[in-house]
Amino acid sequence: MDEKLIEKVMQEVMKRVGADAPSETKPAPEQLENRIPEITEDLVQVTEFVGVGLGDTMGIVIANLDPTVHEIMEFDKKYRSIGVIGGRVGAGPQLMAADDAVKATNTEIIRVEMPRDTKGGAGHGNLIIFGAEDVSDARRAVEVTLDVLPKYFGDVYANDVGYTENQYTARASKCLNYALKAPEGRAFGLILGAPAVIGMLMVDAAVKAADVEVVGYGSPAHGTSMTNEVFIWVTGDSGAVRQAVISGREIGNNLLGAWGEEPKSMSKPYI
Amino acid sequence: MDEKLIEKVMQEVMKRVGADAPSETKPAPEQLENRIPEITEDLVQVTEFVGVGLGDTMGIVIANLDPTVHEIMEFDKKYRSIGVIGGRVGAGPQLMAADDAVKATNTEIIRVEMPRDTKGGAGHGNLIIFGAEDVSDARRAVEVTLDVLPKYFGDVYANDVGYTENQYTARASKCLNYALKAPEGRAFGLILGAPAVIGMLMVDAAVKAADVEVVGYGSPAHGTSMTNEVFIWVTGDSGAVRQAVISGREIGNNLLGAWGEEPKSMSKPYI
Amino acid sequence: MDEKLIEKVMQEVMKRVGADAPSETKPAPEQLENRIPEITEDLVQVTEFVGVGLGDTMGIVIANLDPTVHEIMEFDKKYRSIGVIGGRVGAGPQLMAADDAVKATNTEIIRVEMPRDTKGGAGHGNLIIFGAEDVSDARRAVEVTLDVLPKYFGDVYANDVGYTENQYTARASKCLNYALKAPEGRAFGLILGAPAVIGMLMVDAAVKAADVEVVGYGSPAHGTSMTNEVFIWVTGDSGAVRQAVISGREIGNNLLGAWGEEPKSMSKPYI
Repeated sequence: MDEKLIEKVMQEVMKRVGADAPSETKPAPEQLENRIPEITEDLVQVTEFVGVGLGDTMGIVIANLDPTVHEIMEFDKKYRSIGVIGGRVGAGPQLMAADDAVKATNTEIIRVEMPRDTKGGAGHGNLIIFGAEDVSDARRAVEVTLDVLPKYFGDVYANDVGYTENQYTARASKCLNYALKAPEGRAFGLILGAPAVIGMLMVDAAVKAADVEVVGYGSPAHGTSMTNEVFIWVTGDSGAVRQAVISGREIGNNLLGAWGEEPKSMSKPYI
Repeated sequence: MDEKLIEKVMQEVMKRVGADAPSETKPAPEQLENRIPEITEDLVQVTEFVGVGLGDTMGIVIANLDPTVHEIMEFDKKYRSIGVIGGRVGAGPQLMAADDAVKATNTEIIRVEMPRDTKGGAGHGNLIIFGAEDVSDARRAVEVTLDVLPKYFGDVYANDVGYTENQYTARASKCLNYALKAPEGRAFGLILGAPAVIGMLMVDAAVKAADVEVVGYGSPAHGTSMTNEVFIWVTGDSGAVRQAVISGREIGNNLLGAWGEEPKSMSKPYI
Repeated sequence: MDEKLIEKVMQEVMKRVGADAPSETKPAPEQLENRIPEITEDLVQVTEFVGVGLGDTMGIVIANLDPTVHEIMEFDKKYRSIGVIGGRVGAGPQLMAADDAVKATNTEIIRVEMPRDTKGGAGHGNLIIFGAEDVSDARRAVEVTLDVLPKYFGDVYANDVGYTENQYTARASKCLNYALKAPEGRAFGLILGAPAVIGMLMVDAAVKAADVEVVGYGSPAHGTSMTNEVFIWVTGDSGAVRQAVISGREIGNNLLGAWGEEPKSMSKPYI
């Protein structure tokens, strides 16, 4: 009987305080999966809607973008159709997923913007726009992005204070090139820690661990939207790049654990 | 008896977790109303205090601003008195309300600044300063702003993930002109969605729905403080402007609902 | 029996909603103390780890920074060792503490960056880097910073909506000079309120209260990372500087209390 009562109170409490409100700082895998809602009937009314995913991410497609929007946002008018990916939490996972999508479809990346967001967390949100001459291509790019997105949350490890983000691909494509000037067709690794102090140690460990070429770096006042992160992205031999990422990840997760809580993968590790 | 127990537990829980902590992302109307506190006795001691309002907004008046402050902030010294509006959540509602206030009083807008804020949400906070030669004018401007502020939260619709903000006036005045270069005396409409992906669709729908002139646009990397928003503001025939706003609002709220929760007005819709 | 039941429910609820999730906006002293975790065994593995402190702050030391990092971050290579302080909440307390540390050690400040952070709050996080030729100096600087950090949270007063930050030292050193161009060896006072409207009144009260020289100011669009703060920092006769800080603090805390909750010191007041 007490158990029932407790459950009843719990339900009421959860409703009132918003059970997933602090989810950004506590992204236990199960919680995140739960946040991908079922598509409701109402949504059938919005034909542009494609789907939602981890990180409060949504994908839509606009078949015939109004020329006024082309003008104000300075898009080439040959991209009659656009696919749009936007989310509150994360920029890396969405960039990696969109990179897979441009590889797989007849689209171009025509805009990447990174708000300061993560729902009160230390990092970015995202807005990624695919341009296409044909609506089916734009839609396909959005679908592929949402399909592969869970993979790229796999090596994001978070606890109550911060996170490490680790990404790797053997062949970077046009989205990583557009957003980060990563060389196309070459290996790409991202080594990132938040708060920034975590990233400082990860970056040092990564470049010590393997002979890689640093393509760029981000810090609160350099190359970010004032996020509390330090990171580098690297290229080079694919084995070396992977090793650098793994070395950064290991020490970063250990250090982040100093706040008393082991960082947990937001989906399934892939590196 | 169980009910009493539940209520007791609830009160304790609410006290400890901070019932309105995630309020920014769940601004149900009743919750927001509750956040306008009664003025306590202590406050009588701060003569500059005028009042508080929705969006964690406060208004104060400084009768004789110290000339040092005029100098460092580069205010014209003829504005001996200033009225100040500042809040954590929202810039649009406060700008609209301040626009009504400059129409109604003998004041000028001498500063508008928009922090990246909304208490962990996707958008801006605000700081709006009225200059006046007479303290009663400055005070009146602040009072009017706080009085009409609830109206302009009426077409802000929010759920756990984001919000749409929709604003309309038949005649823009000096505050909208100062902050957004909106043409004075003409119709003004704001079509805004957060996260940015929501705004992209709203903007396209709005310009398709009515023959309006786009005055400006905002996006995470353009014209905002790196918020996770996309928006336009428009002018033109007042009926067309209103129609554009309504069309953006409709599709934006539907799309935002894809996250499984219907967006709710933060006070009472007025458009 | 009811009491036991309530406690049981409370524990379950706290676990599920994350009791300290809204901690940034409710930094009651006891809560903050609790957030300094015991160093776990695992951490022994990270030799660079020095300690953690208030404001989700961590200190590390890197004995032999990889030359690649010197290059990308443009550090002088003579600083073979670096100490790093980084936190999510607060920039002022960490800057003051690091200022004490450079006074006390043979180190230099080689980088200060301030993300927009505070875990959903109105202000900054921080990244402060000490350069040293010898690792023991770098480590000592980090240790001193963490040791004195609680002191400088003493005159930060916060409630659910915002905070005032008040800092004072009779003799500013190299960290305050590096970050804020505060004159070395002279008195330094910081008068800061968030949201920005609180700061406006504090600044006016401070310069009216004492004959001080304003060295600089910050506001959402000026000299900050788009925080919702207004502040000045001042120099002059040490008694006057202290008086200015105290006057700003008094009116700021009163005004902040208008939101119905008395602001509380985050540790023990020292000014």
